[in-house]
Amino acid sequence: MFTPGCLCQCKMCRIGGARYCQAHPACGVPRDLAGRTAPVQVPVDPRQVVRSLAALRADSGSHSPGIAQIERCLPGLVRVDACFLANPYASAEVMTRLRAIAPDELHRMVAHYPSQSGSVARVLAPHLAVDPDLLFVANGACEIIHALLSRSSGTLLISVPTFSAYYESAAGPVVTQRLEPHDGFRVDLAELERAVERHHPQTLVIITPNNPDGAAIAGAQLVAFLHRIAGRVEQVIVDESFSHFSTTETPSTVADLVRSLPNLIVVNSLSKSHGIAGLRLGYAVMSPDRVASFRHAALWNLNAFAEWFCLLLGQPGFQVAYERARRRYVLDIRDFVAELTTLTAVTVFPTSANFALMEVDRPASEVVGALLAEHGVYVRDCADKRGLRGDRYIRVAARGAEDNRRVVAGLRDVLSRPVRCSPARTKSVERRRAAHPDPAHADSALVPPLRLPRA
Amino acid sequence: MFTPGCLCQCKMCRIGGARYCQAHPACGVPRDLAGRTAPVQVPVDPRQVVRSLAALRADSGSHSPGIAQIERCLPGLVRVDACFLANPYASAEVMTRLRAIAPDELHRMVAHYPSQSGSVARVLAPHLAVDPDLLFVANGACEIIHALLSRSSGTLLISVPTFSAYYESAAGPVVTQRLEPHDGFRVDLAELERAVERHHPQTLVIITPNNPDGAAIAGAQLVAFLHRIAGRVEQVIVDESFSHFSTTETPSTVADLVRSLPNLIVVNSLSKSHGIAGLRLGYAVMSPDRVASFRHAALWNLNAFAEWFCLLLGQPGFQVAYERARRRYVLDIRDFVAELTTLTAVTVFPTSANFALMEVDRPASEVVGALLAEHGVYVRDCADKRGLRGDRYIRVAARGAEDNRRVVAGLRDVLSRPVRCSPARTKSVERRRAAHPDPAHADSALVPPLRLPRA
Repeated sequence: MFTPGCLCQCKMCRIGGARYCQAHPACGVPRDLAGRTAPVQVPVDPRQVVRSLAALRADSGSHSPGIAQIERCLPGLVRVDACFLANPYASAEVMTRLRAIAPDELHRMVAHYPSQSGSVARVLAPHLAVDPDLLFVANGACEIIHALLSRSSGTLLISVPTFSAYYESAAGPVVTQRLEPHDGFRVDLAELERAVERHHPQTLVIITPNNPDGAAIAGAQLVAFLHRIAGRVEQVIVDESFSHFSTTETPSTVADLVRSLPNLIVVNSLSKSHGIAGLRLGYAVMSPDRVASFRHAALWNLNAFAEWFCLLLGQPGFQVAYERARRRYVLDIRDFVAELTTLTAVTVFPTSANFALMEVDRPASEVVGALLAEHGVYVRDCADKRGLRGDRYIRVAARGAEDNRRVVAGLRDVLSRPVRCSPARTKSVERRRAAHPDPAHADSALVPPLRLPRA
Repeated sequence: MFTPGCLCQCKMCRIGGARYCQAHPACGVPRDLAGRTAPVQVPVDPRQVVRSLAALRADSGSHSPGIAQIERCLPGLVRVDACFLANPYASAEVMTRLRAIAPDELHRMVAHYPSQSGSVARVLAPHLAVDPDLLFVANGACEIIHALLSRSSGTLLISVPTFSAYYESAAGPVVTQRLEPHDGFRVDLAELERAVERHHPQTLVIITPNNPDGAAIAGAQLVAFLHRIAGRVEQVIVDESFSHFSTTETPSTVADLVRSLPNLIVVNSLSKSHGIAGLRLGYAVMSPDRVASFRHAALWNLNAFAEWFCLLLGQPGFQVAYERARRRYVLDIRDFVAELTTLTAVTVFPTSANFALMEVDRPASEVVGALLAEHGVYVRDCADKRGLRGDRYIRVAARGAEDNRRVVAGLRDVLSRPVRCSPARTKSVERRRAAHPDPAHADSALVPPLRLPRA
């Protein structure tokens, strides 16, 4: 069944006798494990790129396909991954230290079992200035999100648009509060409190800054809100995964409220802030009984490289280097967003995160396809994002300063062309949406959760 | 809170103002992230080593503490990790290729999101000669084990002693079938079938070869048994994690029965066979609806190194090298077990795995402590293994030929000494056990599951 020449391993490649699927612009391009590829000749046909991306998305649910998947289908095409929401300067600091691991130590890391989550929590806790008994270290924040939501059969209250893993993991009904573009997608806490009164949710999720729009809730307002709803919601999840990008000062957190508000669960991902998505590392600060339950379920959930990284965080030299990388990146983000606002034919929404949500004047897929095919720039098409009206939103992540310039130049080029899509097509999209309205567009609509058969 | 001089981070180290806990023989020994340590002066006091190991076990539940944890408390002490059940020759083959990853590719692996589990399944499936729709790729086999057992509120039927993660994950009652030392811990399939009739379990677990004894069920007998109980148990889990060590020929599997027996779930861990426990990689072959449900719950569950390894498995050059490493190791295991049987004062049980269960003539903790303190050899004390009577069992893993000689020499030395433990103490242990009998010692006893608060 194995097709030696092609690593995309799509259905067509796996037909008996077939060597290459030919479904992708570069299917069959030899590629070795060291990642050396014969790069695709750019420009390639943007429509073919759009089709390839659509096929890849089928593997990834409501998320973007990973860069490794794209590389298998479109090798060498992506030069700037502006879909990806992480600090590249922090990645570089980590890589310098990862490459310096002594061969014997690396061998031991790969060959042997890592430590259990509880043991790693004791290493990470001092760095986060939290009690180890309140800390669960996870195989990425998604491990925590799914566990919290899939165990709760009560109502989930969440604002949309937002990170889809929360409502897709929900075992019970989902009530959504719609965020509006004309408000800059800001959460109205008074309205959210009324929704708590009305729907008695078992779980409330607040992501600040939020994804895909980057809007943040001011720290003091959030603290006051959490105190006001204390005891009225069983699980109050505050996701701070993008907080490190919002300020050059020390990022704020509500993790220190967990002792006094035992229903509070503060989730964070180190993938974005520290640029280590490949290592899978996230955490939750929550009540000791929740931590104990999570640890019981998470046998050897962390890999050796994630454990190594937790030790690295304790090194004063790395702490200084990381803080420098973080501040440098925050300044770059500000420059980048300022540049984006100079583009014509777009609306850029205010952001406190390391990306900007933009509304463009043509279907997002056209922009995404042309950017990737002609400029090697990969951005997020948000047409599938629940709670975003229309198919014209893209999310563009800040990278390093040089890459950011390429992204802006690519966008300026693509958006300077006449709009191909006829008004008629736009109207047909609107008609289709009117016939099958996204339930998230009705304020606080009751949406049945996605249900899959259980093993 | 952080104590720069000491990385063990135990409770004593975290007392305000303390720098070193002094609770471990080498607490406070400076150690950098490259793993360079000032090794402990051996011999150290075996009783102190036993106490340190006992403290570490508190972190690890019913499992052995990881080598990284031991290194943090007892740096430089372990020279041969004969607790660890993996093929060292396979590890070496992987390491050669891991070190050859190009810097750019390594950077991309660490910084970016890996592919989703379903995409990685399509890469791994051809290597396993299974349909990708039947394959779930996991963050270690434990991810699968916990998900299968924690979702099932019905009865679990399992033989003991065995791998504790199965019964510890059970959400419902556990019925155990006791394996007897005088039978070489072999599973009596006729008796197991009667237990299925009697207890109507929702889940049946069969581990072959079994851990900690290494006894295997003959392939043809297992296939006939699975057909006989078809449709009578909702989840029939067959764990083949040690099958690669049982023969120099192609290892047998029942994975090809999953299409015709949809209740069958075949679990495997690549940690042991391929020596990559630090990467966290396991899989299950099961019905497509189960696979879909698992994939829904497992967002970005695999790290970049695990994904890289699945691609490596498809490389013909690596396949040849792995098979050579596997056959060499199988021959070494046979030599090692033959050597163990020449020791006096022990019983070595027949094994088809890469370890041997031994009954020694004194408390296991004494043997384990002396071996580690005086010979740098770390073996598994099985005193806590449910279903094993008494505190005199150790499990000794085969490593490479040279290390195996050290293990045998160490055991020969330690076991040649007079027994320190007085008969009176042995009797007190027996009295304590009689007062609080292990429920697993009653044939097919109904045992309440371990329950922890749920988040």
